[in-house]
Amino acid sequence: MLSFENDYNVGAHPELLRRLGETNFEKHTGYGEDELCRSAAEKIRAALGCPEAEIRFLVGGTQTNQIVIDGLLKSYEGVLAAETGHVAAHEAGAIEYSGHKVLTLPAHEGKIDAKELRAWIERFYADESHEHMVFPGMVYLSYPTEYGTLYSRAELEAIAAVCREARIPLYLDGARLGYGLMSREGELSMRDIARLSDVFYIGGTKVGALCGEALVFPRGGMPAHFTAVVKQHGGLLAKGRLLGVQFDALFTDGLYERISANAIDKAEKLKALFKEKGYAFFLETPTNQQFVQLRDEQAEALREKVRFSFWEKPDDTHTVVRFCTSWATTDEELDTLAAIL
Amino acid sequence: MLSFENDYNVGAHPELLRRLGETNFEKHTGYGEDELCRSAAEKIRAALGCPEAEIRFLVGGTQTNQIVIDGLLKSYEGVLAAETGHVAAHEAGAIEYSGHKVLTLPAHEGKIDAKELRAWIERFYADESHEHMVFPGMVYLSYPTEYGTLYSRAELEAIAAVCREARIPLYLDGARLGYGLMSREGELSMRDIARLSDVFYIGGTKVGALCGEALVFPRGGMPAHFTAVVKQHGGLLAKGRLLGVQFDALFTDGLYERISANAIDKAEKLKALFKEKGYAFFLETPTNQQFVQLRDEQAEALREKVRFSFWEKPDDTHTVVRFCTSWATTDEELDTLAAIL
Amino acid sequence: MLSFENDYNVGAHPELLRRLGETNFEKHTGYGEDELCRSAAEKIRAALGCPEAEIRFLVGGTQTNQIVIDGLLKSYEGVLAAETGHVAAHEAGAIEYSGHKVLTLPAHEGKIDAKELRAWIERFYADESHEHMVFPGMVYLSYPTEYGTLYSRAELEAIAAVCREARIPLYLDGARLGYGLMSREGELSMRDIARLSDVFYIGGTKVGALCGEALVFPRGGMPAHFTAVVKQHGGLLAKGRLLGVQFDALFTDGLYERISANAIDKAEKLKALFKEKGYAFFLETPTNQQFVQLRDEQAEALREKVRFSFWEKPDDTHTVVRFCTSWATTDEELDTLAAIL
Amino acid sequence: MLSFENDYNVGAHPELLRRLGETNFEKHTGYGEDELCRSAAEKIRAALGCPEAEIRFLVGGTQTNQIVIDGLLKSYEGVLAAETGHVAAHEAGAIEYSGHKVLTLPAHEGKIDAKELRAWIERFYADESHEHMVFPGMVYLSYPTEYGTLYSRAELEAIAAVCREARIPLYLDGARLGYGLMSREGELSMRDIARLSDVFYIGGTKVGALCGEALVFPRGGMPAHFTAVVKQHGGLLAKGRLLGVQFDALFTDGLYERISANAIDKAEKLKALFKEKGYAFFLETPTNQQFVQLRDEQAEALREKVRFSFWEKPDDTHTVVRFCTSWATTDEELDTLAAIL
Repeated sequence: MLSFENDYNVGAHPELLRRLGETNFEKHTGYGEDELCRSAAEKIRAALGCPEAEIRFLVGGTQTNQIVIDGLLKSYEGVLAAETGHVAAHEAGAIEYSGHKVLTLPAHEGKIDAKELRAWIERFYADESHEHMVFPGMVYLSYPTEYGTLYSRAELEAIAAVCREARIPLYLDGARLGYGLMSREGELSMRDIARLSDVFYIGGTKVGALCGEALVFPRGGMPAHFTAVVKQHGGLLAKGRLLGVQFDALFTDGLYERISANAIDKAEKLKALFKEKGYAFFLETPTNQQFVQLRDEQAEALREKVRFSFWEKPDDTHTVVRFCTSWATTDEELDTLAAIL
Repeated sequence: MLSFENDYNVGAHPELLRRLGETNFEKHTGYGEDELCRSAAEKIRAALGCPEAEIRFLVGGTQTNQIVIDGLLKSYEGVLAAETGHVAAHEAGAIEYSGHKVLTLPAHEGKIDAKELRAWIERFYADESHEHMVFPGMVYLSYPTEYGTLYSRAELEAIAAVCREARIPLYLDGARLGYGLMSREGELSMRDIARLSDVFYIGGTKVGALCGEALVFPRGGMPAHFTAVVKQHGGLLAKGRLLGVQFDALFTDGLYERISANAIDKAEKLKALFKEKGYAFFLETPTNQQFVQLRDEQAEALREKVRFSFWEKPDDTHTVVRFCTSWATTDEELDTLAAIL
Repeated sequence: MLSFENDYNVGAHPELLRRLGETNFEKHTGYGEDELCRSAAEKIRAALGCPEAEIRFLVGGTQTNQIVIDGLLKSYEGVLAAETGHVAAHEAGAIEYSGHKVLTLPAHEGKIDAKELRAWIERFYADESHEHMVFPGMVYLSYPTEYGTLYSRAELEAIAAVCREARIPLYLDGARLGYGLMSREGELSMRDIARLSDVFYIGGTKVGALCGEALVFPRGGMPAHFTAVVKQHGGLLAKGRLLGVQFDALFTDGLYERISANAIDKAEKLKALFKEKGYAFFLETPTNQQFVQLRDEQAEALREKVRFSFWEKPDDTHTVVRFCTSWATTDEELDTLAAIL
Repeated sequence: MLSFENDYNVGAHPELLRRLGETNFEKHTGYGEDELCRSAAEKIRAALGCPEAEIRFLVGGTQTNQIVIDGLLKSYEGVLAAETGHVAAHEAGAIEYSGHKVLTLPAHEGKIDAKELRAWIERFYADESHEHMVFPGMVYLSYPTEYGTLYSRAELEAIAAVCREARIPLYLDGARLGYGLMSREGELSMRDIARLSDVFYIGGTKVGALCGEALVFPRGGMPAHFTAVVKQHGGLLAKGRLLGVQFDALFTDGLYERISANAIDKAEKLKALFKEKGYAFFLETPTNQQFVQLRDEQAEALREKVRFSFWEKPDDTHTVVRFCTSWATTDEELDTLAAIL
């Protein structure tokens, strides 16, 4: 069935599969210490303009978030995040499982606000009993956000400034980073991301890979014995080559950007389509996730012909649903959707 | 200096010290398996009218909360609490440290609302992706609350009903239970507390003891091998007798209620005093904590003569402060305060 | 360079890659709820003769061990394992990270002994202070062991009997299960494994897959909300299909057994080769790992021409090394090794 | 009944009770920030000759061990301890609960050996796969040990030297420190302990107090925000004064040493008594714990007249039992025991 359910419902970009096949019988040592991982890391460093970046490939997003947050925080520290942030809302408590509180900030279409962040931190240290509270040890944000929105350059710079002032790292979850970079409204390049954050990851799972996220410490500072930390969290892949070869392909000849651009092109067409047909947007975004508001019976009828995600019930008679495009979305799929609408 | 800073700033009720001395050279086995603990538990069962209650004495409130919550929850469950609840705000992340998220509900002068609780749970199970979220595994509330307020009988019954419907335990933090029981507006007896909650604790630290809380499972259901659970959390006191003898004294001849009543009498006088002198209340409560709103310079001046707690800054020129009475507050102290005001 | 370093130094069996390619653009829902996972699980159930088995696909071995052990144990329970068991020795404390002690038993060429296990449990319960100790909550063993050895039918039955008597689950780590099943000395079929253990996993990573382990509860009993448990441990793969399609291929037309048999054939040849050339075995095993004792200078010389693993230093002048075969080992590789030796 | 069951079966030394009563109605701020704690810490610093020592009072031993170990270790580090060490054997997994493995060393009458310790560490770093193992992050030992034995000056210096070489802290559990200091064979003063260890605690619970241990970082280095760390582990006592006043008394006019000496005097008499009556020692120690080997029927008979601890069954017809003296043991008790024997 036609599906805009999410951006991880097909396999990998064919070039990645081709490279997987090509290297299949090469013998490589395990645990990410192989040539393919080394090559991929080198290409990412070049793309970021960060020769000193430390890079590690992990399997998935929640795992990466848990390892970074638990790996960098002291036991008495928590991570500040939007109340809609993935770590706050949709990781089944993976952060708390590792011992840390997610300290929530108001979300503005998925984004946190630098002023509110600063105020939170000031209030914390002004409280005489703050030794009885959870210390702010890191700021987490996602780019694009879980709502498909993007921070402007000024917004991200303001947040980064607060973090540096407070001497806490800024961690950027780039599960859908490619879609933010290629957005027509995106103001930030990969080099900006590397410059403004202290640690971030480049999402592979949602941008062309079978699995895999590239965790980057752009100016170094990866915790000592990070292999042990990753192993301890159950995140060390024996055949690290599987991640290496995919990121090597994604960062060869600009493939990552090129396939990300497709998701944006298709999202723009999809938006036009919905508008043309008179649908109301709950949230129209500059990236690959679009939130459409349907009447309940409309949603029911549509669900028989196309897959999408339920988002929320704004009232008793309407439903907000999410349509995702991806690197793999085709014009044919949009034509079929047009016919359905 | 005169102090209304909190309700744990003196030692123990003299009767408890007397009994400590009296039993000092009796030989008792360790870890709460002694005659004094047994006797105390028996007296509490009688006071609650719960012959089958299972009771354990622990040293402090945060420890008790951590042990109960971690001991009863599955790893994927969190505890629902008011955003101002002690477990949410003032335990330095002790609940998250033990692996569980505190799921916050709006606080209404420190209280949660049964309707909002039910709505939260319904929304959770209606969400198609709730397996990626933290399950509601328990409801936590404090009686009196951190704001000195009390649930009415109807309010607590409504919350208990939601819990039973959702098949999750209701845990009542009674750090200041005595002050709630003896409040002139309190509608609930100790037997009501035992009937409506699934597990609760009777606070000793703030009500006459040097330390100690009596954890009660009124209808049984203490987790198996609870001694091991307590030990593992670092909460097993070698000389459990120290807790047993104090609770034995508190539950002999109604001492617990009697000394709690003193805090209420003194709080009523204190309220009258502030009103008489024209002070504005931020929150006037039926228990032993009173929240007064002062002009900043007023607060400064007062701070030189009497100790109280800073609570919050409602605006740039005012300060909300807390005055606590306790089982030990005397008329002389109130007279001195009157003179100062 | 020629390599017998380990059994995960090439990619996947070509049939798995072919199926990955073939299904690449099928749209599948995420998190293991897809048709490919369902089909793979169905085939495994058939192979086990366990129609009621509950099956989940996870990415790697340490992750699987952590999730099973933490998912099944109470907080005050630990897991009994050989002191050489993977969970005891080589998971960077992943089990302790999740809060549980690994209780060690003596290892006999990697195996635990039923009598020693029973004695351990009896001694534990006989100790009057056992509530101050870590309860035995599960038995872990690996088949084949980390030393390439195998339990006989009688040995495994005796261990299973102790577990049932003590009412604790027997968990079998089958990272190299195929190599145990196809060993010429192996007495146990996959159905025997399913019958004798309470939970086990069928290793994919070391037996033909890019990654992936199939966790099996042969008679049901998977913990409730296991998706949340897996997510919380960072182990939920978005594109679960990657695991499903590989196990579907492995369990089609007996591929798993067939490719496992190759490792055994090649191991037998490798053993013959070493013997023929007069090398001493530290441990000659019936599976795909062989432990050869070399003089230090011999080891040095060999290392220049072929990769293998350092195992241990038995004395000052010798080195024990490990040679692994796998599903991918070829006769040509053995010929080259013969020439080198 | 006459009891030599353990060294925590009576209350507190009368002087501590007297001071508790005397200070009972003084108003003190909470959480160990009070004058009594400050005074006690000052006296301990003087006794240690460590003006820069950082000191914190905690409630019990397991709690202290958990907080120190978890507070100082990185997540991927474990603590090295004798296999008979309290943290290894009798804390219900409190160390593992906090995420850390206890790495065990052979115990020689409860003691670890510097050479074996060094060898363990060398072997660890020599292992090529040590990033997949638990790093040695601290050495734990108890003085006296759980077997009542004492390290000689040379032994402790050798262990301390290994720790410094390996750059890992040496943590000394002094639950019974007083009894080690006053032992007739004890070679180490409190100043030696402070000089040779990096962190240690002075036991109160077993040496005259109702509860309480004084944790000492003799040359500073207490982890930042230690209050938050303690709170998070559930170990922050509201009325910290209870601990402060007791240690203040114990460290006034040498009370701690004086009352410890009584336990040693009585232990020497007890040993003489058993010898005189022809009993066999399983382990005769220079401190307050004596291990006597009885025929099973002898043990049975004795148990009716005096309480002691079961220790172990060396064979089918004998039982090893422990007799403890303490600061509170009297000559009358020994006379009664003599009559019984």
